[in-house]
Amino acid sequence: MTSRRVFFLTPGVAAATLAAVPKRRQDLPTPALIVELDKFEANLAKMAGHLKQSGLGFRPHAKTHKTAEIAKLCEKAGAVGSCAAKLSEAIALADGGARGLLITTAVIGRDKIAQGIALAKRRPDTIFVIDHTQNADDWDAAARAAGLRVNLALDLWVGRRTGILCGEPSLALARHVSRLKNVRLQGLQAYSGPSSHTRPFEKRVAATQQAMGEAVETRALIERDGIACNWLSGGSTGTWNIDPSIKGITELQPGSFMFMDIDYRRIGAQGAEEFHDFQQSLFVIATVVSRPKPEMAVIDGGFKAFATDRGYGPELRHRPEIKFSFGGDEHGVLTDSGAKVGDRLEFLVPHCDPTVNLYDTIYAVRGDIVEAAWPVSARGKSQ
Amino acid sequence: MTSRRVFFLTPGVAAATLAAVPKRRQDLPTPALIVELDKFEANLAKMAGHLKQSGLGFRPHAKTHKTAEIAKLCEKAGAVGSCAAKLSEAIALADGGARGLLITTAVIGRDKIAQGIALAKRRPDTIFVIDHTQNADDWDAAARAAGLRVNLALDLWVGRRTGILCGEPSLALARHVSRLKNVRLQGLQAYSGPSSHTRPFEKRVAATQQAMGEAVETRALIERDGIACNWLSGGSTGTWNIDPSIKGITELQPGSFMFMDIDYRRIGAQGAEEFHDFQQSLFVIATVVSRPKPEMAVIDGGFKAFATDRGYGPELRHRPEIKFSFGGDEHGVLTDSGAKVGDRLEFLVPHCDPTVNLYDTIYAVRGDIVEAAWPVSARGKSQ
Repeated sequence: MTSRRVFFLTPGVAAATLAAVPKRRQDLPTPALIVELDKFEANLAKMAGHLKQSGLGFRPHAKTHKTAEIAKLCEKAGAVGSCAAKLSEAIALADGGARGLLITTAVIGRDKIAQGIALAKRRPDTIFVIDHTQNADDWDAAARAAGLRVNLALDLWVGRRTGILCGEPSLALARHVSRLKNVRLQGLQAYSGPSSHTRPFEKRVAATQQAMGEAVETRALIERDGIACNWLSGGSTGTWNIDPSIKGITELQPGSFMFMDIDYRRIGAQGAEEFHDFQQSLFVIATVVSRPKPEMAVIDGGFKAFATDRGYGPELRHRPEIKFSFGGDEHGVLTDSGAKVGDRLEFLVPHCDPTVNLYDTIYAVRGDIVEAAWPVSARGKSQ
Repeated sequence: MTSRRVFFLTPGVAAATLAAVPKRRQDLPTPALIVELDKFEANLAKMAGHLKQSGLGFRPHAKTHKTAEIAKLCEKAGAVGSCAAKLSEAIALADGGARGLLITTAVIGRDKIAQGIALAKRRPDTIFVIDHTQNADDWDAAARAAGLRVNLALDLWVGRRTGILCGEPSLALARHVSRLKNVRLQGLQAYSGPSSHTRPFEKRVAATQQAMGEAVETRALIERDGIACNWLSGGSTGTWNIDPSIKGITELQPGSFMFMDIDYRRIGAQGAEEFHDFQQSLFVIATVVSRPKPEMAVIDGGFKAFATDRGYGPELRHRPEIKFSFGGDEHGVLTDSGAKVGDRLEFLVPHCDPTVNLYDTIYAVRGDIVEAAWPVSARGKSQ
């Protein structure tokens, strides 16, 4: 049997990495992070089709996958590019061939701005966000010295994380940016973290309309001032079917939809307790390595195999009733699962983004076949 | 000013890595993981001196640092070698020049045992643990095919994680191993996770005596059966000054003492609320990247910069009263700290082992000088 699709790795990495990659799912060394391609591709096609139909740009957030190969697959599916949480993540993605990068956190400090200028030189479509006049001035000075014009977007505070307050403070910053010669105002970014996880669905709709409504009003305020501002990027997996109804948003930046996780499943959906708009495509395979007592099966995955930020552990696939507890950095304990030493078990992860960030490789599988080993090339790039 | 000490990196890695390493602490790109060498060296000297004086072997656990350079510094300080949590971690350490490796989790599966045999070939002092007759037979068969004799130790269950029950079950397994031709019974391993974190100190003493007492009795039981068993490895940072009083333990495998963290500080000490037997040497430097509101300062470190398994976040150095909360994967929020955008702040980490596992590099600093950039060469090696 031949594999149905070939994925190309970053040149230079391919030979060394692939040489040691098992060809069959059952031979992957555990703990192993896998993505089931059929489900992953369906998720990507669903989101891309939905946004195309809604007339919205699609710039999926690469903080979820940190993998240049996936960024390029998203581009093939219609994405205008990828978001990156941090500058070093964007650089790693660009090194692997990704385009259209939006860095969603302000880049602060002389050395990092110098690196950002170098990135803008080779990828003129890169967009950086700012929420502070000093940072805008720093970009302008560095761009002038390099003979460039850099794309800046205002990062708006809409209830979580970072950004400048909507309304007058944003207008003042937009005016400031519009007067600078070596930067170009791309538009606005507004990420409403809290609304993406608000449940039930009706409350999520209200929270999103409230948060993104402020961003849309701010865009109108800036435009009424005579400043071009025809771009507003925001949204998430949780609000994918809410944002399109908010007139004024031009682009979505969801990430988790391609993999899904227990956390997102729990946010609920329209008329449903659980969110199944996208399929769980990401799993960790682990092996039972010890059975100290009849009622315990110890697997080879703990804090270093599963993200712990949700406060709960992974879920045994197809057997949600089995109780998992962490057994420290390297182990997990299952009760009453009937598993024997050597058994390989698959788990849904609590939270996909920080789980992916623990692994060097995502194995892309279709059925029993390992079709590719994608280096998580921006793993650990949080700078 | 010249640096007082030079650390050598793995050949081949040095040039590429060091080329980009800033020479001054204030220039490290954040979030940056640093170790203060004066404190780290004092911790190492204190533990090594204590164990030498106690007549105990010192095999520090590399799951804490995952760094071949540190394993070799431990050897220079008198360690007989290093523990590794998993086979792939041990292989990465061996690749970097580490010796005397004890893999503290059973190695399960044909492919992994084949890799273990390859490791044993180039490092005959490697020790593997088992807790199961089938696994012992698998090692014996693989060693026979390779023309080797492999060192196996019994992993005893003493209240956490993995292992075979003490007493008769362990004796039966020891007898089984002693009859196999291509393995050699090294002795016993007993790691009592729960007792390392029991507080107050008096209860920790009792818990340790109880757990390790069973291991010592099991060793005597096996020896009375005529089977040589003169090696018993166990212990942790929390029990470093308790284990030496338990006759029959021959070697300690502490890890966290070299770095320390908030979690270990909280276990308390003899007559003290906090455990300060070793100094905090590990810190994360982060930068304030946004101040959306006067009472908030947002730093560039979140779930991907600090381990989250303890349920609490990092602590601002010298200012424990400042409240930190996670702002998602990439950000943390400080309240009322007075910090401005661009300020660099240093943090104590909640839990050192899984925090180190998030970083590709540990910067070794002395005062303002970056003396070395150690690749975390076994990072992500949980297989």
